[in-house]
Amino acid sequence: MSAPDLTPTAKAEILLEALPWIQQFRDKVVVVKYGGNAMVDPALARSFADDIVLMHSVGIRPVVVHGGGPQIGDLMDRLGKKPEFRDGLRVTDAETLDIARMVLVGKVNRDIVASINVHGPLAVGLSGEDAGLILASARNPDLGFVGDVEAVNPAILDRLLAEGLVPVVSTIGADVAGQSYNINADTVAGAIAVAVGAEKIVYLTDIEGLRADVGDPASLIRRTTARDLQGLLDDGTLTGGMIPKVAACVHAAEHGVGSAHMIDGRVPHVLLLEIFTDEGIGTMVTKEPRP
Amino acid sequence: MSAPDLTPTAKAEILLEALPWIQQFRDKVVVVKYGGNAMVDPALARSFADDIVLMHSVGIRPVVVHGGGPQIGDLMDRLGKKPEFRDGLRVTDAETLDIARMVLVGKVNRDIVASINVHGPLAVGLSGEDAGLILASARNPDLGFVGDVEAVNPAILDRLLAEGLVPVVSTIGADVAGQSYNINADTVAGAIAVAVGAEKIVYLTDIEGLRADVGDPASLIRRTTARDLQGLLDDGTLTGGMIPKVAACVHAAEHGVGSAHMIDGRVPHVLLLEIFTDEGIGTMVTKEPRP
Amino acid sequence: MSAPDLTPTAKAEILLEALPWIQQFRDKVVVVKYGGNAMVDPALARSFADDIVLMHSVGIRPVVVHGGGPQIGDLMDRLGKKPEFRDGLRVTDAETLDIARMVLVGKVNRDIVASINVHGPLAVGLSGEDAGLILASARNPDLGFVGDVEAVNPAILDRLLAEGLVPVVSTIGADVAGQSYNINADTVAGAIAVAVGAEKIVYLTDIEGLRADVGDPASLIRRTTARDLQGLLDDGTLTGGMIPKVAACVHAAEHGVGSAHMIDGRVPHVLLLEIFTDEGIGTMVTKEPRP
Amino acid sequence: MSAPDLTPTAKAEILLEALPWIQQFRDKVVVVKYGGNAMVDPALARSFADDIVLMHSVGIRPVVVHGGGPQIGDLMDRLGKKPEFRDGLRVTDAETLDIARMVLVGKVNRDIVASINVHGPLAVGLSGEDAGLILASARNPDLGFVGDVEAVNPAILDRLLAEGLVPVVSTIGADVAGQSYNINADTVAGAIAVAVGAEKIVYLTDIEGLRADVGDPASLIRRTTARDLQGLLDDGTLTGGMIPKVAACVHAAEHGVGSAHMIDGRVPHVLLLEIFTDEGIGTMVTKEPRP
Amino acid sequence: MSAPDLTPTAKAEILLEALPWIQQFRDKVVVVKYGGNAMVDPALARSFADDIVLMHSVGIRPVVVHGGGPQIGDLMDRLGKKPEFRDGLRVTDAETLDIARMVLVGKVNRDIVASINVHGPLAVGLSGEDAGLILASARNPDLGFVGDVEAVNPAILDRLLAEGLVPVVSTIGADVAGQSYNINADTVAGAIAVAVGAEKIVYLTDIEGLRADVGDPASLIRRTTARDLQGLLDDGTLTGGMIPKVAACVHAAEHGVGSAHMIDGRVPHVLLLEIFTDEGIGTMVTKEPRP
Amino acid sequence: MSAPDLTPTAKAEILLEALPWIQQFRDKVVVVKYGGNAMVDPALARSFADDIVLMHSVGIRPVVVHGGGPQIGDLMDRLGKKPEFRDGLRVTDAETLDIARMVLVGKVNRDIVASINVHGPLAVGLSGEDAGLILASARNPDLGFVGDVEAVNPAILDRLLAEGLVPVVSTIGADVAGQSYNINADTVAGAIAVAVGAEKIVYLTDIEGLRADVGDPASLIRRTTARDLQGLLDDGTLTGGMIPKVAACVHAAEHGVGSAHMIDGRVPHVLLLEIFTDEGIGTMVTKEPRP
Repeated sequence: MSAPDLTPTAKAEILLEALPWIQQFRDKVVVVKYGGNAMVDPALARSFADDIVLMHSVGIRPVVVHGGGPQIGDLMDRLGKKPEFRDGLRVTDAETLDIARMVLVGKVNRDIVASINVHGPLAVGLSGEDAGLILASARNPDLGFVGDVEAVNPAILDRLLAEGLVPVVSTIGADVAGQSYNINADTVAGAIAVAVGAEKIVYLTDIEGLRADVGDPASLIRRTTARDLQGLLDDGTLTGGMIPKVAACVHAAEHGVGSAHMIDGRVPHVLLLEIFTDEGIGTMVTKEPRP
Repeated sequence: MSAPDLTPTAKAEILLEALPWIQQFRDKVVVVKYGGNAMVDPALARSFADDIVLMHSVGIRPVVVHGGGPQIGDLMDRLGKKPEFRDGLRVTDAETLDIARMVLVGKVNRDIVASINVHGPLAVGLSGEDAGLILASARNPDLGFVGDVEAVNPAILDRLLAEGLVPVVSTIGADVAGQSYNINADTVAGAIAVAVGAEKIVYLTDIEGLRADVGDPASLIRRTTARDLQGLLDDGTLTGGMIPKVAACVHAAEHGVGSAHMIDGRVPHVLLLEIFTDEGIGTMVTKEPRP
Repeated sequence: MSAPDLTPTAKAEILLEALPWIQQFRDKVVVVKYGGNAMVDPALARSFADDIVLMHSVGIRPVVVHGGGPQIGDLMDRLGKKPEFRDGLRVTDAETLDIARMVLVGKVNRDIVASINVHGPLAVGLSGEDAGLILASARNPDLGFVGDVEAVNPAILDRLLAEGLVPVVSTIGADVAGQSYNINADTVAGAIAVAVGAEKIVYLTDIEGLRADVGDPASLIRRTTARDLQGLLDDGTLTGGMIPKVAACVHAAEHGVGSAHMIDGRVPHVLLLEIFTDEGIGTMVTKEPRP
Repeated sequence: MSAPDLTPTAKAEILLEALPWIQQFRDKVVVVKYGGNAMVDPALARSFADDIVLMHSVGIRPVVVHGGGPQIGDLMDRLGKKPEFRDGLRVTDAETLDIARMVLVGKVNRDIVASINVHGPLAVGLSGEDAGLILASARNPDLGFVGDVEAVNPAILDRLLAEGLVPVVSTIGADVAGQSYNINADTVAGAIAVAVGAEKIVYLTDIEGLRADVGDPASLIRRTTARDLQGLLDDGTLTGGMIPKVAACVHAAEHGVGSAHMIDGRVPHVLLLEIFTDEGIGTMVTKEPRP
Repeated sequence: MSAPDLTPTAKAEILLEALPWIQQFRDKVVVVKYGGNAMVDPALARSFADDIVLMHSVGIRPVVVHGGGPQIGDLMDRLGKKPEFRDGLRVTDAETLDIARMVLVGKVNRDIVASINVHGPLAVGLSGEDAGLILASARNPDLGFVGDVEAVNPAILDRLLAEGLVPVVSTIGADVAGQSYNINADTVAGAIAVAVGAEKIVYLTDIEGLRADVGDPASLIRRTTARDLQGLLDDGTLTGGMIPKVAACVHAAEHGVGSAHMIDGRVPHVLLLEIFTDEGIGTMVTKEPRP
Repeated sequence: MSAPDLTPTAKAEILLEALPWIQQFRDKVVVVKYGGNAMVDPALARSFADDIVLMHSVGIRPVVVHGGGPQIGDLMDRLGKKPEFRDGLRVTDAETLDIARMVLVGKVNRDIVASINVHGPLAVGLSGEDAGLILASARNPDLGFVGDVEAVNPAILDRLLAEGLVPVVSTIGADVAGQSYNINADTVAGAIAVAVGAEKIVYLTDIEGLRADVGDPASLIRRTTARDLQGLLDDGTLTGGMIPKVAACVHAAEHGVGSAHMIDGRVPHVLLLEIFTDEGIGTMVTKEPRP
């Protein structure tokens, strides 16, 4: 990538702007939940891989967690598999689970690993079944193989991180009998961040951050606390697809993760901007208010 | 599993029969190429997982390498994808590669990992794209994404083995530009055995071993050398699907692997019998003749 | 050793019967108190060495503790040394101690080490004087150099076990002034098991286990608890030579050793049967009742 | 430092321009010879400290080597010490050596350490006498305590670098009898770079690089080889104060240091520009021509 | 050094007298505050270096802390710098600090390092500014750059000691903004002894030990406790230059240092006598009375 | 032990005389062959233990190798066992071997270990059968179980030395079948010194050193080379019991051991004098002449 036409001094100043952030996050784990447009658009996907590799190169230890709902839907369509509902809720039968697993582990995960590894042999794909990473249980027998996280055993992540590798995690878990389950990726990302003692968790979304009023861009919340956010969940202000992300941010911030972020994955290199510049990006959640 | 009704002394003698083999293979790597009926039959699949776990429990370091041709064919059928041929050779276009990758990494590998991990958090699935494990190149541009092994970078295997984990490898590789390829699993297994310095490589097949005359069960070859086997390849005695296995056995035996074996995967617990008993099982290939 | 004429499947099943026990005891310390007929009969002595080596080869860490009363008596006879009694108790004067030490450390221990090391350089003989292993004190000044265990310093055992070696311990201890004492081997074995955090201690005896009524083979106790056993000691049910063994079993089970066993050393390979098969062998003592 | 008013994307691109350089120099040692205006001007001195800390924060291992001729002259003046010459060469008597040592080790080195350590406890001052770092010998008895480098013992540097510290070296050495000598800092820097296996050595000078014709700025040499540079030394093209720097660059490039650089220390953050941007800065010397 | 004309047996007995002390202090840290005549007299300075090297050679880990008031005064005189007083207290302005730092770090420290390193590459000079060793604060703004110890960060000492090196510390500290301060060396020595968990701290003085009555040599205190010594400080019995030493001894003994000693640095090899012989030397301070 | 009535300065000088020797032998292995009067006389035996502990306390790694011919003879007498000869050579039958093993391992070794361990848990007794330390073979079938050293496997010694322990070795070896042999202790000591890479081997004898003329004390050889000594062996100058010692010294000096010494074990603390003082003691053998 050729950098813009700047004076050398301007370049140096931008590098130095990154210095305190590099020092702060050196050797720290940062969990990144990857999804949405950032995963679908090929240019954004390359930009994401660049950002992960740069984070890694300055000593940060990134863990990527990904979902893949639309891609699962595509393959179900192609296989003529109709979504099934029970009491209005979507059911994951054995065949659907099989399809989800093939898409997540065998396609989406592979594509992320491959795009990072263009820069060097860094990324290793994992699913929650590997080395007992995610112990799952059925959320509701009527829904089939939709799972909840019972426990995270981070040993395999700790080992890979200690070797300087970048784990890329598909959110399939298994119960003690070896039965697999599909689990919400936002929830898994938060549970992993807590289990590995991450300093930061970042959710890439298709919106510029959390809005107090979902229809009003001007209501973007820049900083908030886990307590305040829990309030918004409790009083019904927040609805729809943001709920698992927001709940996971609250959980992470309250269980030792330094900060949780929801940022706009549609902006190229948004991860770099969030981590290495003084710009305010998206929404930051912490346990206590920060100055 | 309840053992047969034997006198205690008989039981002790069988355990002691295993002693020299346990001592010989302790801390050694044994690569097992898994496929065929042993992978399709659920009872044999459980028996295979038992055997891998027993090997691991006495200090052997197994690496499982698997294929999955029939399973790939099934999904292609279901998706209405017709096999394409050019000059009589089967072509792997981008869509076929995608399907192969989903089936191998997202289904077959997952099933093996899950069946081993019923015994504990031991197995970790990998594809050749992870951490640069398999560097591939196109075999023939006309055939699309069918690859050859350019190099094996065993660092990720060494790390997982050092942690007491059991790697399960899908035979997808990537070239330096990040393009993936499907590679013959028999060939990959041999290359991995050489790269990790394995003591032994075992191919599970659907036949009781190598026959001098393929139609004559009485012509089973019990022991042979790499040199003699190369002779059978060169003079056209061996044909068909056994060729990649046999060539890989020759390659492994000539590049430092202590012995290469072709054994009958249809026999329950055949791996245990091969490794821990004095019985002659299948065909053994070594560099030099052994007494 | 050639195993009996069994079907391959039967052999595999016996090996698999051992799997859960291998997994359970992997990297665990098992203390074996060796004595009686098992030590005197040459065939049983070879069988014992086989069993220790097999335990070691599957990752268990055995520690052998031995006595040698009859052998000491033999040398005293040959030297024309008469046993001396005071108030009806046997006295160990300096010359007797010297004889005991020569026989235990210089003969019995040597024979055990040599029979194990036929299988490889595994065993290392120790007495309690080495590296301060057993700190002793006089039991009763009138009895001379008969000692009690004041403390066990397991550092030298921990080091040898960490190197994959098999310690063989003669039960001579020394006090802070360097004076040596002969100590009851059953008692020392229990104290060592506690000090090294053993998972299991096994006493080889000349009887099939502990009997509620010593004259009635049908009264064999299969499983009991430390508390119940203490009751039998307290109410005088148990008498004679079993008392030190039983007291040591109670002590071990109450101080962190997973289970204590009294088994019949006259049965070939009884150690293997106790550890690797589902058979009930002899008497097992645990802190809490087990299902 | 607040970075210039750029679009986020421009910022990201400048950070990404640094990525390949960060990857290339990660965990590598870079020796920086610090002196001239960059050391005298307080703003440049802060800029230098910033640059060293940024290099360190992305995983590079900098070693700073400094001189201090003008500062030594200042203290000599204040103490009324006249420079002494013999046969036209300057003499370093015991008093002059004492003054040089106080200024270099007790003032210049301290100031560099202090300015780096404002960012964290990173820098450790050393002189060549510490832990036998520089073994010296008299250059010429008539000149007193002017020394040559006999040998560099890099053990103390290796240890400090392994702990993530930044050594700052004053170029005083000692002979085997403990007598100290003042040594040319350019020469010491090159010898240290060779001894620690540095990837790069950078000389900060008061000129923009090496000129083929010292009076002609347009004759700046951008890239050259050790062989060509040796030619310029041999044929007398180069003269005066650049000779020790140039000779040290030749020596370093020919003894395993990847590249040697002479750059303009008067430019703020010139170290960052040299290392992390694609700009051509000053003069680069390598063993072989590079594309 | 040639030893006196003694019988071999007498020599052996002196060596054996040292044995229990060598065993007691093996691998322990001993902080030695060096100053006074022992530093000024060249023969005593060599004797001191011998003693430090002998301590090191038998496995003790010495840390040397030094002052240098008279040497600072000398250079101030030569530079025509007049001592300045405010309200009767001496002021350390920037120029005085500069002079102190040059003398301590650039001359006194160097001389100690050089005299030790004649025996091998053992000593490494440090000031409190290196790697954040001593965090200082201004004692009193009116006095300029006279500092107090805010905190000791012993990481750099621990690292050098772990490598078998001998740290020699100049007592300059720095505050968080990088400003340096001159600090009383007696106080720093005590703070360092506490921070590194020293077993012993020894102050070399120009008197044979602490006297109850400063004018009466017969009032030498051989052993005392921190509590009793604090009493002498509180009731005004002790005055003048001994106060910082005595206060530091009290502080050290009450914060985990085994014993603190004030001994006569004018006696050749007094350190050896204090540490390796049964002689009573100077004054020993402990927390609790010792027999 | 109370040291003689010397001035403090004289004491310091004797300690300093030891300094260069302590530095030279720090972390080096010194093998001491112990026997003769030094082992029989209780005061000398305590003096020997003191010396070994002092060597250990200053960082030397001693290995003690001992014989015990007279003690074996005593027990044979008491047991009424007559020495047997064949063709004039003494025969070691199974019973004699048993007696030798009991005496060496169970008595002599024990006494040495106990006397050292009065100073702390340092010594560990070994025989050559432990962990395969000494592989032996029959010297001559007619002589029974008299062995030669086939090979030394120093792994167990290396491990114990690395843990700071003092191995005490009885010179019984075993062949691959587990049969034990009694081996000449002088020979074993030399073979062990070579195998562990000792810096020095010291033989304690009952004479003040090697004499050119055995009957003439004035013919004591102070220093010699392996080559010259071999000459004395070859030309028949040396005879009798010194031959194995001398041959072992030649072998050690020619196979990497820095020096071999024969010294007078009847002198108290002769080991300390040899190692830590400048006195010339006994006979020193080196490969090359030393100044």
